[in-house]
Amino acid sequence: MSRSSNHTWTRREFEQRLRAIGAARYHDRHPFHIKLHEGGLNQGQMQAWVLNRFYYQKSIPLKDASLIGRADDIALRREWISRITDHDGKAPGEGGIERWLVLAEGVGLDRDYVASCAGVLPATRFACEAYIRFVREKSLLEAVASSLTEMFAPTLHKTRIAALLEHYPFANDRTLAYFRTRLVQAPEDVAFGLGYVLDHADSREKQEQCLAALSFKTDVLWSQLDALNHAYVTPALIPPGAFVPEVRA
Amino acid sequence: MSRSSNHTWTRREFEQRLRAIGAARYHDRHPFHIKLHEGGLNQGQMQAWVLNRFYYQKSIPLKDASLIGRADDIALRREWISRITDHDGKAPGEGGIERWLVLAEGVGLDRDYVASCAGVLPATRFACEAYIRFVREKSLLEAVASSLTEMFAPTLHKTRIAALLEHYPFANDRTLAYFRTRLVQAPEDVAFGLGYVLDHADSREKQEQCLAALSFKTDVLWSQLDALNHAYVTPALIPPGAFVPEVRA
Repeated sequence: MSRSSNHTWTRREFEQRLRAIGAARYHDRHPFHIKLHEGGLNQGQMQAWVLNRFYYQKSIPLKDASLIGRADDIALRREWISRITDHDGKAPGEGGIERWLVLAEGVGLDRDYVASCAGVLPATRFACEAYIRFVREKSLLEAVASSLTEMFAPTLHKTRIAALLEHYPFANDRTLAYFRTRLVQAPEDVAFGLGYVLDHADSREKQEQCLAALSFKTDVLWSQLDALNHAYVTPALIPPGAFVPEVRA
Repeated sequence: MSRSSNHTWTRREFEQRLRAIGAARYHDRHPFHIKLHEGGLNQGQMQAWVLNRFYYQKSIPLKDASLIGRADDIALRREWISRITDHDGKAPGEGGIERWLVLAEGVGLDRDYVASCAGVLPATRFACEAYIRFVREKSLLEAVASSLTEMFAPTLHKTRIAALLEHYPFANDRTLAYFRTRLVQAPEDVAFGLGYVLDHADSREKQEQCLAALSFKTDVLWSQLDALNHAYVTPALIPPGAFVPEVRA
């Protein structure tokens, strides 16, 4: 059988194409992350990153619950639900969102201010809300595929923990607990998510939709760093109403 | 009667507060616009602006139709429908979107490329889609209030026409037809929109919702220029997949 130019890719070929999107477009390559990991951020810039990234953290359970709410497949729901409890915890004082607030306090931010999301860059909101909406409106397969940036996260988190410990006085076991926990959680999540996508993308059209979904997700992440970089690093133009770091004497 | 701290503002006071948002947050103050109007953009930067702003133009009829689709008030629908035909025209070759494509050709872009929206910055998409969603999901009053950036547009368009004619060889009656037409259309639209908001925001709570809606809309506009500035001016970091201007010999 001769292969047409739009044959269904093999499982291996399709996975390679998914991974290639990470290599080309994942936000570990963004100058803001490079600066973060090189110890180049001042306290205000670090605070801006933590504050804005909180908005992303807080969006995650909303998108995961929206995904479960559309899934007829009970096995998918049973698997996916741990993502919500990972972020929300099972009781006050637990969970990834709580751990992020501990990080926020560690970098000198007021916990309630961060939790209020006042001062978050509009571009952060728009990107995170685009992600939630994508998961609510696209096919379930595309929604799952958009989660696969997690394939690339453990490497980034490992680098980050070492880099933060090396360069920033606020970094310790307590403030970095979010990242350490994700090192364990993300590989479990991605094993299921990747398997699901490889199993269910059974036509070239669906495979291409999955690649587009993953590509979209890298845009969501990248554009958040663009906005941080523009507002707080170069040209350091803070949009009206957004967080203004305190200038320390 | 003594006024509580959350009394309903008078019509005049409320209108002043709406206008104050323009003075503080409208994107005429953004460095990218200042550069545009000073003749400081090179051809690639001008193309990037026209290309990205096309995505905004093409979003407008979608948000206006969504607004009409939620309005029980036939008077509002009759008034609002001209916004759709202003942008879409009544026949091929007519309307604001067509005039924007003429501008795009004038700055050296391929019409079909622009119309395809390939190469548009993700942040542009996220901002414009946030606007459409806002109009679909918030109250009708807030949806109308979010259109009131048009109060500030005619001044900007007047400045722009003069500035483009002075500084850029591509500028002529044909390529600038979009802006000239808006000089006539926007004041008509805003007279109705402002009247509607002043009439229907009959409590302090609704007035504050309208201020927030207008403020949100200024964020939508401002964040688009932030993204353009970051990608094409400073630090000139083009996100993966976005338009890359041709380098001319």
